[in-house]
Amino acid sequence: MRHFAEELEALKQALLEMGALVESSIHTSVQAFIQHDDRLARRVMEDEALVNKMELDLDARVTRLLALNQPVAGDLRLLVMCLKINTDLERMGDLAMSVAERAISLNKLNAPLGESLIDMPRMAAIVEDMLHRTLDAFVNRDADLASKILPTDDEVDSIRDGVYNQMIATMRRDPSLVDAAVHLMFIARNLERIADHTTNIAEDVIYLVRGVDVRHHAAEEI
Amino acid sequence: MRHFAEELEALKQALLEMGALVESSIHTSVQAFIQHDDRLARRVMEDEALVNKMELDLDARVTRLLALNQPVAGDLRLLVMCLKINTDLERMGDLAMSVAERAISLNKLNAPLGESLIDMPRMAAIVEDMLHRTLDAFVNRDADLASKILPTDDEVDSIRDGVYNQMIATMRRDPSLVDAAVHLMFIARNLERIADHTTNIAEDVIYLVRGVDVRHHAAEEI
Repeated sequence: MRHFAEELEALKQALLEMGALVESSIHTSVQAFIQHDDRLARRVMEDEALVNKMELDLDARVTRLLALNQPVAGDLRLLVMCLKINTDLERMGDLAMSVAERAISLNKLNAPLGESLIDMPRMAAIVEDMLHRTLDAFVNRDADLASKILPTDDEVDSIRDGVYNQMIATMRRDPSLVDAAVHLMFIARNLERIADHTTNIAEDVIYLVRGVDVRHHAAEEI
Repeated sequence: MRHFAEELEALKQALLEMGALVESSIHTSVQAFIQHDDRLARRVMEDEALVNKMELDLDARVTRLLALNQPVAGDLRLLVMCLKINTDLERMGDLAMSVAERAISLNKLNAPLGESLIDMPRMAAIVEDMLHRTLDAFVNRDADLASKILPTDDEVDSIRDGVYNQMIATMRRDPSLVDAAVHLMFIARNLERIADHTTNIAEDVIYLVRGVDVRHHAAEEI
């Protein structure tokens, strides 16, 4: 058996790999309807199955490490956080899959949404970047970086609100676009939920490093 | 300090209390627009703040128990599950609050949605019952009960799909109802997400009791 420190390092690497796969799923799920390519959507679905496997494997590894090494203080906190980050990443994979499913429906409808689509890759790019930086913050135990990520969640909320308003206006104007507009609203909602999960992870990183729980507090207090 | 067994019992009771509060929030959030009563919505918001506090408190208690008692096997699994159930309950509280926020918007719109509203209390009642039985299964370590809950998630999905279809038809027919219909769709989506979280907990209970991980597997295999 490897030393505990090596096991922890391997666990962090496994979480990073899972994070990279989720990041790529977010990107691909949005490209599936921007590029009008169902194959991209199906790739996200395959990757989601892989993310699910990774979740089960990671949970089992953390539980084994807790049982065999009975860690305390910082190491214990790290393992508890791994469980939470693992759950968040798996939910993000689910949400990317929901986007991919709606991408396939949107591609079938082939509705002239034009300009309204512009916000989606922008929103996805922000969310991918949030996730990437959050996982960097996690492996480098960088609480400053993690706290810089928190305000970005408001930016994502604001894009989502913009998409909602645009789509509501579209549906009022042209009832034939209702189905497509509903898909776009739910896609925006899913991307925003992904940002929420990233925020959860960033808060966990801050807790891990500083030992201060910032969940359910204003970001300004950090 | 209390004995470890007593601490575990107290922890289970605390999760049950949190679950009861979330259950009542689900009910109240839907009644807020059925009864056209903003005060009910505001009560859900107050309770959500309480649920958040309970989450932080429970996480801290579990981490302390892990550190001080270094449990193995079944007890370790129970504590890991408490962390996961805690996260699920808190997210369910968030979702109930989202329903309450939309209830306030719906009450302002005062749109003639009539019959379309019938499904919502029915959906909420099923979700509340799922949560109640899931937490019963948890405290009684009843894997059979937990596995009976899993198929109900499909019933909830099917009601949600019905609401989506009704609302899409409503928006196509009468563009003046677009705003209200969008609120109802998101409410249905939130209730369905609450059912998903309940399913997560039921799967955790099965794992806890049988040591078999049923996540990401068909319910039929159980």
